[in-house]
Amino acid sequence: MAGQTDDSKRDVTVLGLGTMGRALAGALLAGGARVTVWNRTPGREGDLVAGGAVAAASAAEAVAASRTVVVCLLDHASVHEVLDPVADRLAGRVLVELTNGSPEQAGELAGWAGRHGVELLSGGIMAVPPMIGTPAAFVLYSGSRAVFEEQRPLLDLLGESVFAGEEPGRAALQDLALLSAMYGMFGGVLHAYALAGAGGVAAGELAPLLRRWLGAMSDFVDGAAAQIDSGDHARDVVSNLAMQAAAYPGLVAVSRAHGVDPALLTPLGELMRRRVDDGHGHEDITGVVELLRTREGSR
Amino acid sequence: MAGQTDDSKRDVTVLGLGTMGRALAGALLAGGARVTVWNRTPGREGDLVAGGAVAAASAAEAVAASRTVVVCLLDHASVHEVLDPVADRLAGRVLVELTNGSPEQAGELAGWAGRHGVELLSGGIMAVPPMIGTPAAFVLYSGSRAVFEEQRPLLDLLGESVFAGEEPGRAALQDLALLSAMYGMFGGVLHAYALAGAGGVAAGELAPLLRRWLGAMSDFVDGAAAQIDSGDHARDVVSNLAMQAAAYPGLVAVSRAHGVDPALLTPLGELMRRRVDDGHGHEDITGVVELLRTREGSR
Ligand SMILES: NC(=O)c1ccc[n+]([C@@H]2O[C@H](COP(=O)([O-])OP(=O)(O)OC[C@H]3O[C@@H](n4cnc5c(N)ncnc54)[C@H](OP(=O)(O)O)[C@@H]3O)[C@@H](O)[C@H]2O)c1
Ligand SMILES: NC(=O)c1ccc[n+]([C@@H]2O[C@H](COP(=O)([O-])OP(=O)(O)OC[C@H]3O[C@@H](n4cnc5c(N)ncnc54)[C@H](OP(=O)(O)O)[C@@H]3O)[C@@H](O)[C@H]2O)c1
Repeated sequence: MAGQTDDSKRDVTVLGLGTMGRALAGALLAGGARVTVWNRTPGREGDLVAGGAVAAASAAEAVAASRTVVVCLLDHASVHEVLDPVADRLAGRVLVELTNGSPEQAGELAGWAGRHGVELLSGGIMAVPPMIGTPAAFVLYSGSRAVFEEQRPLLDLLGESVFAGEEPGRAALQDLALLSAMYGMFGGVLHAYALAGAGGVAAGELAPLLRRWLGAMSDFVDGAAAQIDSGDHARDVVSNLAMQAAAYPGLVAVSRAHGVDPALLTPLGELMRRRVDDGHGHEDITGVVELLRTREGSR
Repeated sequence: MAGQTDDSKRDVTVLGLGTMGRALAGALLAGGARVTVWNRTPGREGDLVAGGAVAAASAAEAVAASRTVVVCLLDHASVHEVLDPVADRLAGRVLVELTNGSPEQAGELAGWAGRHGVELLSGGIMAVPPMIGTPAAFVLYSGSRAVFEEQRPLLDLLGESVFAGEEPGRAALQDLALLSAMYGMFGGVLHAYALAGAGGVAAGELAPLLRRWLGAMSDFVDGAAAQIDSGDHARDVVSNLAMQAAAYPGLVAVSRAHGVDPALLTPLGELMRRRVDDGHGHEDITGVVELLRTREGSR
């Protein structure tokens, strides 16, 4: 019976009720799934049970309740601590692993899953908990595309589902790459506020300009991608590196003169300078990636 | 006669026909202004004369042609090199100085302008040349608000005109603050592409996700401003610093393991760690600004 099959697909267990696990379980519940939850420390179910979730007494019981098991714990070690004892029960089920980790850890868990007959989707959540279940959130998944497609009705309740590839570590790799860009932006924003503040401009005064400026400059994301993939950093250059590298020390000096530590700015300035010294001043700033690659073939 | 007054307001001279000066002159022409241009090295007028601009034979002649004189040269020294000999001719006119510089340099030029009876607007162009004259560009101005308002019909031809305050160095300060945030974002994006590439993910594959992710995370700009201005980094914390600081070394380690130099990431990690060690782990990452301020009262 088609109806029954669909229903059973919407059974889902969530292991781990930290800030993120609770947000995931809440979004699944809100989307109409039959949700079973479990957490190592009892009593963290909060409103979930009032909202219709079933609190399982053990991880084993929780796993047994659903064909799809979502796990979102502190780290890779805690994932094994929880899953190893229930590996037999997981056999034949789909494990959606959303704990942050490295590509290597995802690869390791894929091997473990294979040995235990578990279908694994390794995910990377690109959202903070309040964004879960909204269109602003997206989640990267790697693993079998067929399993991904089968699970989509559930996964899409968390945010937009993006398939990152069959290789188990791909979602984690892309997750970490995206995080590193975010931290670059965060560092730049924090420096900007420190500098503005030192000159008597409140962060709230700079904020609308900053938002607009970063929005306009985000075209760099696409332009840089084309240059980096082509390996030709000299094409479509709007502001050449020599000019930028020449102006950069002024930025650092003004920061220092205003009593602001330029620590977040200096590494890029050094890389730009090295690249100019190597004869690439006529190229774009994107050539800096060539200096970041410390290994042959790391491209 | 009102009509005549309006017409004479739309006379404008552009000194400096580098990439940016040519873009400025082009946008002024396109907006219907009567444009006189001059450049140290002749022959850089390009299409401007064909488009209706008048090429002056000397800086003095160029200054004499218009009530508004826009200057966009290499740096502060070149501005004095060009303007000092024509200071008398500039008296009673409006100088719109769009060369990149420090707040201190803007202050110095404001003193110079005051001594020579010149009305100065010190600007900071937030755009690359192809954006000039489009809604994506904005230009910060500091100086007399009355002069700014009087000049707006002309200034608005370059992009959105934003008044940064009467204090002469304010536009330059905000310009540099915005640039530092941009370079943070650029550095993060370059690291992201290097890491993705090392793991076999092309930049072009990551780009749409990166753009989307940075867009979603740009809410940080407003949230951080409120926290920084209040000085209370513990309010509205979504992801506390301790958790982020604990995960950060993983990001650095994965980069290293993939042969990617983490130079652009490490300074922020160190600041996060120091802040956690100082007992601020329960707060937001915004507390890092307190470590960037190396002087008392630099807030
Ligand atoms: N919060 C975010 O902004 C965010 C964003 C993207 C991704 N993530 C990732 O999502 C995951 C969870 O984050 P969170 O914010 O929910 O963290 P959290 O609030 O600190 O919750 C951690 C969870 O892990 C459990 N846990 C820890 N060690 C365990 C062990 N040895 N055995 C069993 N359970 C254990 C905790 O259970 P107890 O209650 O028993 O301690 C708790 O349920 C992390 O990998 C994080 O990197 C978080
Ligand atoms: N390009 C951008 O993306 C961008 C963005 C924002 C702001 N800006 C700022 O705009 C300004 C101009 O940039 P640009 O891109 O137009 O640079 P550019 O193409 O290198 O042009 C430099 C201009 O300065 C002139 N110049 C240099 N030294 C001089 C001197 N001693 N006396 C007289 N003229 C001199 C040059 O004249 P010659 O032709 O005779 O050498 C040329 O017209 C800079 O301050 C830059 O930071 C640029």
